[in-house]
Amino acid sequence: MTVGTHPTAATHPGGTVLTSPPQDAPIDRATEAARKLIDALQRTDRDNANLDRVAEELNSIVAHLEQHAPEVEERLIDMWNGEGVTRHDPVTGRENAIAPPVVLEGLEDGSVQGVVTLTLPYQGPPGHVHGGVSAMLLDHVLGVANAWGGTAGMTAQLSTRYHRPTPLFVPLTISGKFISKEGRKVHTVGEIRTPDGEVCVSVEGLFIDKTIPRPR
Amino acid sequence: MTVGTHPTAATHPGGTVLTSPPQDAPIDRATEAARKLIDALQRTDRDNANLDRVAEELNSIVAHLEQHAPEVEERLIDMWNGEGVTRHDPVTGRENAIAPPVVLEGLEDGSVQGVVTLTLPYQGPPGHVHGGVSAMLLDHVLGVANAWGGTAGMTAQLSTRYHRPTPLFVPLTISGKFISKEGRKVHTVGEIRTPDGEVCVSVEGLFIDKTIPRPR
Repeated sequence: MTVGTHPTAATHPGGTVLTSPPQDAPIDRATEAARKLIDALQRTDRDNANLDRVAEELNSIVAHLEQHAPEVEERLIDMWNGEGVTRHDPVTGRENAIAPPVVLEGLEDGSVQGVVTLTLPYQGPPGHVHGGVSAMLLDHVLGVANAWGGTAGMTAQLSTRYHRPTPLFVPLTISGKFISKEGRKVHTVGEIRTPDGEVCVSVEGLFIDKTIPRPR
Repeated sequence: MTVGTHPTAATHPGGTVLTSPPQDAPIDRATEAARKLIDALQRTDRDNANLDRVAEELNSIVAHLEQHAPEVEERLIDMWNGEGVTRHDPVTGRENAIAPPVVLEGLEDGSVQGVVTLTLPYQGPPGHVHGGVSAMLLDHVLGVANAWGGTAGMTAQLSTRYHRPTPLFVPLTISGKFISKEGRKVHTVGEIRTPDGEVCVSVEGLFIDKTIPRPR
């Protein structure tokens, strides 16, 4: 689902980053550490890593962060201010530990594209990417492709086809391209390819040109 | 995408939990703390929470966990052993901090169902669930529905329709139901409803009855 008007869509083509680049900011460093934590928790030895102590330390950090958290309504206004739109989503968001994050570039042929290597937290079948994760990533990439194509909209329909299992641990190329707009209906396609160029997942999206207002 | 034969699908109907219940285990407590951390990092005050110190502490925990992590190949064998199949996925996995986690029950009418409240890390449009997240959750729920229906398979096609924006912060009901099997083709449907029973997202899935072997 797209996130309203993309703030960097108006910038000119040819390699412009359509998602928020990493900043030399403490929140980026803390979120990147949390991302590594999610992965390390999947990999560590269950019986030998003193996980009770780890849980205690993490809960202590959580308590500290919550002490400094404003009300959600207030936080929402801040999140949706300016470039914030690209910093919190679960696919490209630098400030979202769930996001791998995917970094997309807008290309001159009108498509957007990024390369991402997925690890254990994104696993579905053994050693392969969860089909739902592929759908999630593609939905978002199509939204950015719409922005790059000069439009926007909310997902109305997403048709995802799985051609072959998508491997973990290799650099996958994810791409999306705005195809056409008829009235308020926006048509967009995308795919996930292996490093050898094999298409693992392809998607067709129908978006409706409307948005949910930003909180103020 | 389903995860092979579901280990609890053979248990009898009427409220049997089809995903791994929480265990009084240190890894469950540590993962739950990491889940809270992901959320707290989205909510905390960027300028006032000493995030550099938080990043340092998290990186120190990560280094500790990685010191105790076996090789990935070895870890994969362990992950896929027994009930492990339901503990690591990004939707229901108690040992995956990305998972909300969704807890599903198998009902006597043949469906599976769970209730989940999603927060900021799962946000797409302002105050609403990311369309890709909805697709991810439903893909997995359909896989569990197949298991509950006595079959299994990999996602071949997933058609997701978005009827209205899905709100954050309210208990959503997610359900799936195995419909039919013709040869190796498995048909399954699912939806996400608000507490008022309004359908926000519906999905039709086509699965192919084949699996990727578990690592040994």
